[in-house]
Formats: sequence, structure tokens, C-alpha cells
Amino acid sequence: MSPDQTPTFVHRMRFRVRYSEVDRMGTFYNARALEWFEAARVEYLRAVDLPYDRMEADGVHLPLIEAHLDFRGRAGFDDLLEMSVSGRMVGKARVRFDMDVCQADDPDRRVVSGYTVHAVTTRDGRPIRGPQWLAEGIAPPAGERKTES
Amino acid sequence: MSPDQTPTFVHRMRFRVRYSEVDRMGTFYNARALEWFEAARVEYLRAVDLPYDRMEADGVHLPLIEAHLDFRGRAGFDDLLEMSVSGRMVGKARVRFDMDVCQADDPDRRVVSGYTVHAVTTRDGRPIRGPQWLAEGIAPPAGERKTES
Amino acid sequence: MSPDQTPTFVHRMRFRVRYSEVDRMGTFYNARALEWFEAARVEYLRAVDLPYDRMEADGVHLPLIEAHLDFRGRAGFDDLLEMSVSGRMVGKARVRFDMDVCQADDPDRRVVSGYTVHAVTTRDGRPIRGPQWLAEGIAPPAGERKTES
Amino acid sequence: MSPDQTPTFVHRMRFRVRYSEVDRMGTFYNARALEWFEAARVEYLRAVDLPYDRMEADGVHLPLIEAHLDFRGRAGFDDLLEMSVSGRMVGKARVRFDMDVCQADDPDRRVVSGYTVHAVTTRDGRPIRGPQWLAEGIAPPAGERKTES
Repeated sequence: MSPDQTPTFVHRMRFRVRYSEVDRMGTFYNARALEWFEAARVEYLRAVDLPYDRMEADGVHLPLIEAHLDFRGRAGFDDLLEMSVSGRMVGKARVRFDMDVCQADDPDRRVVSGYTVHAVTTRDGRPIRGPQWLAEGIAPPAGERKTES
Repeated sequence: MSPDQTPTFVHRMRFRVRYSEVDRMGTFYNARALEWFEAARVEYLRAVDLPYDRMEADGVHLPLIEAHLDFRGRAGFDDLLEMSVSGRMVGKARVRFDMDVCQADDPDRRVVSGYTVHAVTTRDGRPIRGPQWLAEGIAPPAGERKTES
Repeated sequence: MSPDQTPTFVHRMRFRVRYSEVDRMGTFYNARALEWFEAARVEYLRAVDLPYDRMEADGVHLPLIEAHLDFRGRAGFDDLLEMSVSGRMVGKARVRFDMDVCQADDPDRRVVSGYTVHAVTTRDGRPIRGPQWLAEGIAPPAGERKTES
Repeated sequence: MSPDQTPTFVHRMRFRVRYSEVDRMGTFYNARALEWFEAARVEYLRAVDLPYDRMEADGVHLPLIEAHLDFRGRAGFDDLLEMSVSGRMVGKARVRFDMDVCQADDPDRRVVSGYTVHAVTTRDGRPIRGPQWLAEGIAPPAGERKTES
């Protein structure tokens, strides 16, 4: 997932496809994947002890500026999925998250993968360099890998 | 729609069912009806010249406190629907909207109807009596009925 | 929650408010409550061993025909909520679910409650009486109450 | 928008940001852009006389396999937006749509742009080459450009 082959901290989470998320072809509606990605970022930041609300209280925002999705397979109502997510700085003023979703009982049945890129800004949207604590905290050593279901 | 039989001002709007709104049974997902109702309230308030943003600028908010929906028939992808909406004060401190959605080409094929009840509050959520201009403006005489597609 | 005071089987589930579910007033968008109610029904039916997919495989569908919501308080991004849900037959051909959502750490801070009413139908939407196994299974004795977080 | 500079048929549509689409930062929630893109594809295909439902009746499906979004600016509740969309074949078995959304009253205030790539398949998901009528119809000469608000 990471372009350089350095092992990275990965957070994993499991969730079920809601009925409301399934379209008339019987698979999840595409836009829902962006909601899943958002939920994954929130859990990832909690896992690396940089919770969203504290960041925003510190005046640091991460507005989404780019998103990419590759749809790889179907996922129907009530399917149990597993998503892995990892984050890192890209340069001084960008954060990137990579997400990968598969069927929980068969990692080879991939569902959707993608990435999101975020600016680092003040509350009023002015771009800033990512503060030291963000750069240090966003991508912990792979050894500290935690997983959660 | 109105419990007393007084003719009321009714606003009408037409819209198509989006692909994203259809569930795996081929009909609109139930929660979407509440989004349609919201869009109808916005258009209604614009039609009676009480636009949302101006109300909020005047410090008057209408938070939703109750909603009721009766699902009456199917509506599939790309179906053209027509919604009628009317609003009125209920007592001094409540606003109620009634909505009715049917297939645009056949009013007898009803889709979903319902109502929403709103408190009148300040920006910070403190209940207030509806101001005079709200009480006078929210339910114009039926004679001024406008429709728009 | 139940109009007659008979103790009923109640399923409980916990979930966090997603960022995507919060509106510009900082509280969950109203239509999302209907999605939560849907998720609760799915978990309830699984808890009483009448999973949705098996019901549909048996040719029994429960299309929504009525929904009611009372909005009682705010719930912001990442708030941990607890929802209780119980189901029962209403007459021979209707199923009703009652839902109640509060802040998980303070049951007195209620968020939204409501109910949904469902017809019992064949796959092609023809109304039928609820089969014996549905009537017997949907509302187990209160003593079998299970909870799950 | 098109990588080669050939003028292409472009369909334009206008729409307002719904209250339900706005997040707590006061701008549209990111996943909604994928719903807007979907609505744009539907209108584009109708404009080039290849309506979705007729394609599906002919056994040709266009499942989404890739999506990309660049978020360029804010759009708040009730803002009137304009989206341009154009489609074309990419090779023999892929369709690509390019979308660009801006504030309707100021094309320089861009909101979100992106593209989606679709496989051409049978109803059961088997990849096929795009039929002749699809290849010929999807990208009419620029001279036939139509716009619609």
C-alpha cells in the first residue's frame, strides 16, 4: 500500500454493510466507500492517539483535497468487511491515508481500495506546515502496530 | 392534508429519483424521503419569501422535533416524482409542514407522505414564540398559491 | 416503550456518530436516524435468530409502511450512543419495532426515539399473514433478554 | 478536461446543495460529490440518447471501477452549482466520464472535479467490448453540444 516498502503502522477495523448502503444491483453504493474511508481515518487517528477533536481543538484541520477509489469486488447487505488503514505525511503540508477493504473471511475477495490526501490548515482554512507532533505521531513504527475488530 | 378544511397555500416541486437513492429492492431507500422533505421545506420557505438563510440571519431557527412518514408505494430509479408541501404555525411556538409525494404522471400512484414538526428557537436552541413575521408569512392565503416544477 | 406494560425482549447496541452524519448545526442529520433504526432492526432480528437474509430466503419480506421519529437531543461527531430496540407483531400482518437512542454514558441524555411499522409480504409484495415462526420468534420472553455492545 | 484537445460534447446541469449534504464545517460532505457525479452521468446519457434504463434493457451495464475526485473549493447549503460532464470510450471496453463542478454564478470558483471509469459488462458482470452503438453514441461531435439547466 505504501509506495516505499517501509513497513508501516496499520489499523484494522471490521464493519457490516448496512441495508441502506446497498444499491439496486445488490452491492454497496459507490459513494458509501468514501464514508467508510472517513470512519477509518477517525479510528486510525484515535489508534495513534491523535484524535480528531483534539486536533481541531489545537487548531489543526485536515480538509480533504483529493480522493481516489478502485472498486475491486462486490459487497452485499450484512457482509462483514475488514478495512486496513494507514496514514503518513507527504511533504511538509499534506497527510495521506491509504485504505483497503476486503471481505473479512477472505482477504483475497477485495472490495474497494483507495487513498485520500488532506491539506493541513488552520480552522479558517489557511494552509500551514504540519506541526511536529503531527509529523511524529501520524505514522508510528510498524512495531507498534495495533489491530482492533 | 390540512386537518381543518381551510384551503392552504401549497408549493409543488418535481424531482427525479437518483440511482444512489434506490435500495436493493429497486425502490427508494426510506431515509431518503426525509431528505426530500427537507428539500421541500427549503423550497416552500423560498416560495413564501421566508428563505432559511434569512431566517437564520434573523436568529430564528426551526430545529426538527418530530417526523412522521407513511410509505404508500414504490418509486424506482429515474422516476419523475411530484411533491406538494405546505406549512403553518401550530400554536405559538411550533411550525408544521405536510408533504405528499406521488408519481408525476399519475397522482393516484402515491409514493410517500408525512409531516414534520419544528420548534422555533434562537441560534443557541432556546425555544421562543414564533415572531409576527413568521406567523404571518408561513401560510399565505390559498389564492396566492404558486407552483413550480 | 411498549404500550402495554409487559416486559419485552430488548436488544441493545452501541455505535459512534460518523463525521458524515453530522450537519452544519453540529448534530446528526435527521434522516440518519432512519438508517440507525434499520441497522437496529437487523441486529435485533439476528439476536432473536430470525436473520433478515434467512427470512427473505423463506419468501417473507417486511417492507416499511410507517415510521415515526421524536428528536429529543443533540448528538455530535464521534459521540458514543446506545440504542435499544424491541419488536413484536401488531395483529396478524404487521410487525412493529420500537427504538430509543441515548448518549451511552448518560441514559438521561436522550437523542432520538421512534417506531417503524412493517407489512408482512411475499417477495413480490403481496400481503400475507405473518407465519407461525415469525409470530413466535419476534418477541421472545423478557427473560431471554440479551445485550450486546 | 479531455486529455487530447479535441472539442467534446459537454452536458451541463445546475443543482442546489441540499441541507442534508452539508457537514459541520459548512461545506458539502465529500461523498456527496460521487452522488452528484452519478446524477450527471444519468443526465449525460439521457442527453446523448443512450438512457441508462434502455442500456440495461439491452443487457449492457457500466459498473464503476475507478473514481477520482479533486476538491477545489467550498459549497454551502443552497448554493447553486453548475456541473459539466462529458463521456467517451477508453479503449474497447471502458467508458470514462469527466465531471467539473463550480459555483453557477462564478465559474472561477471551482468546487470539485474528477472522473469515473466504468467497465462494460453483461448483466451478470461479465466484461464485454462496448457495442458499436455505445462507441458511436457516447461522444457525439462537439457541434451537437446541448446544455440544460
